Amino acid sequence: MTEAVCVPCSEGTGVLTEEMIAEGLAGLDGWARRGETIYKRYEFKGFAKATQMANLVAWHSDKMGHHADISFGWGYCEVVYTSHEAGGLTENDFLCAMRLEALLA
Amino acid sequence: MTEAVCVPCSEGTGVLTEEMIAEGLAGLDGWARRGETIYKRYEFKGFAKATQMANLVAWHSDKMGHHADISFGWGYCEVVYTSHEAGGLTENDFLCAMRLEALLA
Amino acid sequence: MTEAVCVPCSEGTGVLTEEMIAEGLAGLDGWARRGETIYKRYEFKGFAKATQMANLVAWHSDKMGHHADISFGWGYCEVVYTSHEAGGLTENDFLCAMRLEALLA
Amino acid sequence: MTEAVCVPCSEGTGVLTEEMIAEGLAGLDGWARRGETIYKRYEFKGFAKATQMANLVAWHSDKMGHHADISFGWGYCEVVYTSHEAGGLTENDFLCAMRLEALLA
Repeated sequence: MTEAVCVPCSEGTGVLTEEMIAEGLAGLDGWARRGETIYKRYEFKGFAKATQMANLVAWHSDKMGHHADISFGWGYCEVVYTSHEAGGLTENDFLCAMRLEALLA
Repeated sequence: MTEAVCVPCSEGTGVLTEEMIAEGLAGLDGWARRGETIYKRYEFKGFAKATQMANLVAWHSDKMGHHADISFGWGYCEVVYTSHEAGGLTENDFLCAMRLEALLA
Repeated sequence: MTEAVCVPCSEGTGVLTEEMIAEGLAGLDGWARRGETIYKRYEFKGFAKATQMANLVAWHSDKMGHHADISFGWGYCEVVYTSHEAGGLTENDFLCAMRLEALLA
Repeated sequence: MTEAVCVPCSEGTGVLTEEMIAEGLAGLDGWARRGETIYKRYEFKGFAKATQMANLVAWHSDKMGHHADISFGWGYCEVVYTSHEAGGLTENDFLCAMRLEALLA
């Protein structure tokens, strides 16, 4: 999980095993699994900070070439990663989550 | 449903009856019900337009004083209205949906 | 100035005369001229509202097919219209300003 | 210039000398001086990427507690730093520029 940019899913990026997913989540504070995705809910005071977080994740998605699903509203922004084209979780999802955490640190 | 600005939910805005909800939805193209919310999924080509739509709804939420729950990602932006404080759907939700549709027309 | 969408500048949209510019500005509250542009400075409390305004104008620019130049920072957002390709002010600029004002009303 | 967060300007942050400014700019690729500010113009293809950059800088401004002046439009986003309250350039401005560059790397 050290690539600088996400590997295109269509070129055969592999779906992770349960063991690899567990290992990945162990290194990500506040992230959890939901089906074939990983997600984290960030909480904020009010609406403006949540909107700004959504825009940060949008920017980060384009930068990484791997796009999150983002939900936000009053007091929260939830970020979800999955590899739609691969049909499951791949290293790209964990790479993006790690990088996003680094931005926020 | 003609108020210019949303009525604060905490000041007694009433939860709508089933009949009123059905009537409200009948006038909103593409909106549907899900539990105690109404929502619409807007589809886009790519990511940038979906992000822009999310920001439009964020702006509109502050303008109306009634905040949507917004989800977006590659190719879509979903907007959800409910009146959290009233514990159900109120006229505010339908007013916001109508105004948003007017912006997009 | 009643078109629903801006006319592409490259297809011969005409540069307005001084008289037409003066007339257009007379109908736009708070807008003024600066060289071959018209602009308005909107003031806000803090940073978040200014950012949201910038995003509104960005959305509006794409909707209209005519893109503003936008500046924002703590407490302000300035919107500038000109028709770069026409080399001056055209009806598109006034149409966009009018529509933006209508959104904010 | 190693602080994690900007020092509030009102608490006596010092205006930099000409020598310090020149030294700071020497370490910032593409940044230049304009009066009591430093700025950089980032170029993009189209409008959406420029808008996204503006939102990134807005997020970064809040994170740093030091707010840029941001201009964007078709094909560009310009970022300007100055310390309004200090009446000139301070270490905060260079710190923010360096951090922004790191985000984009």
